[in-house]
Amino acid sequence: MNLIILFNTDFTSDNQVTLTDKRFEHIRDIHQSSVGDSVKLGQLNGMMGTGTITVITDDRVDIEVTLDQDPPEKLPLKIILALPRPKMIRRIFRSIAELGIEELIVINSYKVEKSFWNSPALTDKKVEEYLMAGLQQAKDTVPPKVSFKRLFKPFMEDELPAIAQTSRGIIAHPSSDKPCPHTINENAVLAIGPEGGFTEYEVNKFIEAGFESIHLGKRILRVENAIAAITSKLY
Amino acid sequence: MNLIILFNTDFTSDNQVTLTDKRFEHIRDIHQSSVGDSVKLGQLNGMMGTGTITVITDDRVDIEVTLDQDPPEKLPLKIILALPRPKMIRRIFRSIAELGIEELIVINSYKVEKSFWNSPALTDKKVEEYLMAGLQQAKDTVPPKVSFKRLFKPFMEDELPAIAQTSRGIIAHPSSDKPCPHTINENAVLAIGPEGGFTEYEVNKFIEAGFESIHLGKRILRVENAIAAITSKLY
Repeated sequence: MNLIILFNTDFTSDNQVTLTDKRFEHIRDIHQSSVGDSVKLGQLNGMMGTGTITVITDDRVDIEVTLDQDPPEKLPLKIILALPRPKMIRRIFRSIAELGIEELIVINSYKVEKSFWNSPALTDKKVEEYLMAGLQQAKDTVPPKVSFKRLFKPFMEDELPAIAQTSRGIIAHPSSDKPCPHTINENAVLAIGPEGGFTEYEVNKFIEAGFESIHLGKRILRVENAIAAITSKLY
Repeated sequence: MNLIILFNTDFTSDNQVTLTDKRFEHIRDIHQSSVGDSVKLGQLNGMMGTGTITVITDDRVDIEVTLDQDPPEKLPLKIILALPRPKMIRRIFRSIAELGIEELIVINSYKVEKSFWNSPALTDKKVEEYLMAGLQQAKDTVPPKVSFKRLFKPFMEDELPAIAQTSRGIIAHPSSDKPCPHTINENAVLAIGPEGGFTEYEVNKFIEAGFESIHLGKRILRVENAIAAITSKLY
């Protein structure tokens, strides 16, 4: 936890917070902080800065905060991701927040098992927890916007065209003959398939919407590595 | 498992293998293959190709193999990595094999807890298992060379100079003012610190050895994401 994220409800006055949950335990047990020590903080969707511990007891910490730095700018990148298998969701969502991606749109795909949509990892509470972990690692306060589109065709036909109009569309497809572009200076939207990939029908739907299909070399990367690798190449 | 790795001991003749372990179970349960089906295979440190299942029983599969493709070339990149905390070792080692990195040198660092060196994740058997998982994902047959240097100073003074002489040295250091270079066409060696980073003393040792210190933007990435992101930028 390189940055502690503060919520509006933590504030007891304009520049004073009280923490009693995991963040308190982290300050007590990992930082082993005492009164007078400072800690890096940021307000969710707001400014970042430092805090000075004024009180620390067995069950809470009071911190006086000065928030005077802007969070890093988001990357102008949206990711359209076929729903991963449940045990991968936490890590992938956390990474997407960590990397500074602006928006995540989770879609269905032929090779996504129906049962994945019922995973407890997809509750609002869990999703928020994963995104917060990414922000706390990266030192950022602004989570990506996340939405779920359980019906492939309506999303592709009714929503994708508007997204593709303002962004360069890219679809990761190992059998493409075009390498991933690098250092682009524009908005982009990146589509990443499930394990086993999008079907040809699905890839064609993206191509019809103006997406270019690209590869990352001869190796097939896991989704989480592909996301970090492509994001890093693009920006 | 996008590629099944074969060992010399699997061969019952020049072009025939018998598998009875997890790879057999994978073919039976995940691929649900029958006689006549084909499967992608590669020989450890050798060629890749396809196999045709000739016999499948309750406890083994016999495959006739044709190995006629070269594995993808390794990236000309060595990574010098401060020993990660044990629960991260599997994922990081697997990723390093998956990304096609040529060599991994694991070193000590001030912020590495001594107990990490006793982790069962560091036995030869476990390390091989993690590397194989990366190769099976990536479709590659050549694992990175892996070595462990438990003494920081002797490694830095006696071994690093020779490595740095033939490769461009890069050290990931969030407070550097130089962004990570991209699309370099040369051998490189990349140093990555532990959680919390190398100490200034350690960073200076690398800089004395001719390393340039670089950052990846304002966000602090976890080691595994930093490795994928930097590798992808460099090549």
